[in-house]
Amino acid sequence: MNYSFSEKVSHLQASAIREILKFTSDPEVISFAAGNPAPEAFPIDEVRRISAKLFEEEPINVLQYGITEGYTPLRDLMKERMLAQGNFKPDSEDLIITSGAQQVMELACKSLCNPGDTLIAEAPSFIGSLNAFKSYNVNLVGVPMDDDGMDPAALEATLKANPNTKLIYLIPNFQNPTGRTTTLGRRRELYALAQKYNTMILEDNPYGDLRFAGEDVPSIKSMDTDGRVIYAGSFSKVLAPGIRVGYGIAPKEVIQKMVVCKQVSDVQSNNFGQMLAYHFVHDTDFDAHLAGLRAIYKQKAERMMRGMEAHFSDKIAFTRPQGGLFLWCTLPDGSDMMGFCKRAVAEKKIAVVPGSAFMVSEDDVTYSFRMNYSTPTDEAIDRGVEILGGLTREMFG
Amino acid sequence: MNYSFSEKVSHLQASAIREILKFTSDPEVISFAAGNPAPEAFPIDEVRRISAKLFEEEPINVLQYGITEGYTPLRDLMKERMLAQGNFKPDSEDLIITSGAQQVMELACKSLCNPGDTLIAEAPSFIGSLNAFKSYNVNLVGVPMDDDGMDPAALEATLKANPNTKLIYLIPNFQNPTGRTTTLGRRRELYALAQKYNTMILEDNPYGDLRFAGEDVPSIKSMDTDGRVIYAGSFSKVLAPGIRVGYGIAPKEVIQKMVVCKQVSDVQSNNFGQMLAYHFVHDTDFDAHLAGLRAIYKQKAERMMRGMEAHFSDKIAFTRPQGGLFLWCTLPDGSDMMGFCKRAVAEKKIAVVPGSAFMVSEDDVTYSFRMNYSTPTDEAIDRGVEILGGLTREMFG
Repeated sequence: MNYSFSEKVSHLQASAIREILKFTSDPEVISFAAGNPAPEAFPIDEVRRISAKLFEEEPINVLQYGITEGYTPLRDLMKERMLAQGNFKPDSEDLIITSGAQQVMELACKSLCNPGDTLIAEAPSFIGSLNAFKSYNVNLVGVPMDDDGMDPAALEATLKANPNTKLIYLIPNFQNPTGRTTTLGRRRELYALAQKYNTMILEDNPYGDLRFAGEDVPSIKSMDTDGRVIYAGSFSKVLAPGIRVGYGIAPKEVIQKMVVCKQVSDVQSNNFGQMLAYHFVHDTDFDAHLAGLRAIYKQKAERMMRGMEAHFSDKIAFTRPQGGLFLWCTLPDGSDMMGFCKRAVAEKKIAVVPGSAFMVSEDDVTYSFRMNYSTPTDEAIDRGVEILGGLTREMFG
Repeated sequence: MNYSFSEKVSHLQASAIREILKFTSDPEVISFAAGNPAPEAFPIDEVRRISAKLFEEEPINVLQYGITEGYTPLRDLMKERMLAQGNFKPDSEDLIITSGAQQVMELACKSLCNPGDTLIAEAPSFIGSLNAFKSYNVNLVGVPMDDDGMDPAALEATLKANPNTKLIYLIPNFQNPTGRTTTLGRRRELYALAQKYNTMILEDNPYGDLRFAGEDVPSIKSMDTDGRVIYAGSFSKVLAPGIRVGYGIAPKEVIQKMVVCKQVSDVQSNNFGQMLAYHFVHDTDFDAHLAGLRAIYKQKAERMMRGMEAHFSDKIAFTRPQGGLFLWCTLPDGSDMMGFCKRAVAEKKIAVVPGSAFMVSEDDVTYSFRMNYSTPTDEAIDRGVEILGGLTREMFG
C-alpha cells in the first residue's frame, strides 16, 4: 500500500549532512563529527561494583515496573543537588527523570506548544532539539548569536514579530555546536525579555559540569522568580549516555503535564540506569569524578586548539570553549563550506559536521562547521588537525 | 506566571480512576488492579550472570551511545524469531527496538496521524495506548467487542462513517483489559475490512507468549500481504518491564519515520536493557523460560477463576482467559459499577480497575471491571476473591 505520513514527520527528512556522516563508519576516517564522551571518561570499576550490588541486593526493584516520575531516591538526590545550585524551588517546582535530556525537550514542546506556536532557538543550535521541536509542527525561528550568546536585539524583534512565542530554547553553557557560553549579563537580558514578552525559557544544560576554564556562570534557572524556566540536565556527559537518564525541573503544573506525556511515550525510564545514576552520585565521590572529566576534556580541547593555531590557515576563525565537547570553526565569508566539509572527508578522511546541520533550515547560510574533541584519541586529534589545517591553507591560503 | 498547555495534553486529565488506584499503596489493600509480572517470573540468576559478563567484557558498549534503530545483535535476533513466527518479511520490512512496546504505539500514531484523523480501537482497550493516541489529538473511536474480538459489523460502520481512518488498534491475544482472544476467523474479517477501507492495523501483542490454554492463533501480521500491519512486541511480560525494551515491525518506509520520531524522543533505548534482552534470548533456553512463565500464570489464573466460581454471585459474568494477565468481570446491566469498585476498595480493601478506565471516554457506559492475577500472591488471590465475592453477593444476590 501507499503510506501517507503525518505533517509532523513528513518534513523531517534524512539530510544532506548524512552523506558526510556516513563516511565516519570508514575506519580510516578520523572523526571530529561525533559528540560521544571519551571512552576513558567512563567510571567502569564503579559501574561494575554498583551493578553487581544492585543485582545482588534488589534485583526485583531493577526488573519490575517503577513510577513514571522516576526512581524516588534519584529524584530526591537530584532535587537536593539542584537546590544547592539554585536550580530548584521545593515549594513550587518538581523534578522528573527522563530518558535522556532529549526527552525533556520533547515533553516540554509537546506539553506547551500547539502547531504553529513559535519556538525560538539560538542559530545555530543542537540538531536533536531542533528536530524534536519541528516534529510538533511549531514555527521554529532561529535568532543569531554572538560570542556572548543569543543577540538580545534580534530576540526582541523576533518576540515582537511572533506574539505566539511559547518557548525560548537556550544552551547557555558551552553550547552545542558553538562551544560558546552565554555571559551573565546576557543571561539577565534574555530572562528580562522572556518576562517582558511573557514567554517561557527552556534551558538545556548537558555540559555545565564540564567547565575546564574560567568561572561558573549562574544558570538562568537560578534567576527565575516567575516560574518561567524549564531546566534540563543529563547524566549522558557526566556518567554515560547509554543509560539514557536525564532530568527536567519546572513548576509543578508543567511537570504534571510532562509526566502525562512521558507515561504515554515510554511509561518510565529504565530502572537500571536510574539506580546506577543514583548510586554513582550518592555512594562515590561524584565531584572528584567530575574533576577527572574536566581534566580529560581540558587536555583534549587545548590539544585541538594548539593544533589549530599551528596548522590552520589564519583566515579561519574558531571559538575557544571553556568547557563541553565542541568548538566552532568559521571559514571566510562566501566560502563553499559544504564543499570544504565534503573534500575534508572524501579526500583527506577527516570528518567534521557542516554548520548547516545546526541551522533551523539547512538552507540558512553559514560558513561554519563543528569540531568535537571528546571522542578522538590524542593521536587522532594531532594528526587530523594537521591534515585538516593543510586543507584550510590549500583552499584559503 | 499562568501556563497555557497545548491542546494535545490539556484534555489528558488525571482521572477519577486514580481515586481508586491511590488506595493500592495502602499495604492492607489486596490489589487486583496492577498489571505487573509476578515477582517469581523474573529470571534473576540469569540476569545476574549476564550483567556481570556485560560489565566485565564490554563495559564501554553498555555505557556509550548506540544507534537509534536499536542494538544490532538484538534486532537481528528478533528479526529471525519474528520471521519464524510469520511476523517479519525481510525484503520489505524492518524492525525497530523501542523503549517498551508503549513507544511503538506512540511512534506509529505520531508518524501516521494528523490531528483529527480517525484511529479505531477496541472498546474497551489498554488505557496507555488510548492516552498515547489522544495525546496526538486524533479522533479516537471505540468499536465494541464480543467474545470473538472486535465486532466486524460495527467496525465496518465506523470505517464507513470515518473515511479518514488511519489506524485500527487491536490486541488480539489475551486482550488488556478483557483477557479475550480474537478468533482466527475474526482476525481474517478484520484484516479484510482494513483492506476494503485501505487503512492500517496496529497489532499489539505483549502477551502472545503467555498462552497457558488452547491453541496459538496466527497473528494478523502473518496474514499481511499488503504491508498494512504494524506489529508491536515487548520484553516487559516475558523478561522484565523495568528494562524498557520492546520492538516494532513495519514496512521499511514506516520504520524510517518511526526512527526519526524515536531519535527526537529519546535518541535510543538504553543499551543495558537491549543487551540483556539479546543475551537472555540468545544464550539461555528462552523457550523453557516462557514455558515456566506459562505455568506460573496458568496456576494463578485458574486459582482466581476457581475462587470466583466458588464465591462470586452468579449474577456476575467473567471471561476465561487462555493466557495473559487479566480477566474481565461484568456486573448486571444497570449496576453502579463505579460504586461497586469504590466500596470494594474503601470497605473491603480489595482494589480492581473500573472498566471505564479502558473506554475511549470515561463517560462511556460499562458495567465491567478488570482483575489481574499475575501480581498478587496465591494467598492474596484466595482471600481477595473470597472477600470480593462476598461483596458481589451482598450487592447483587
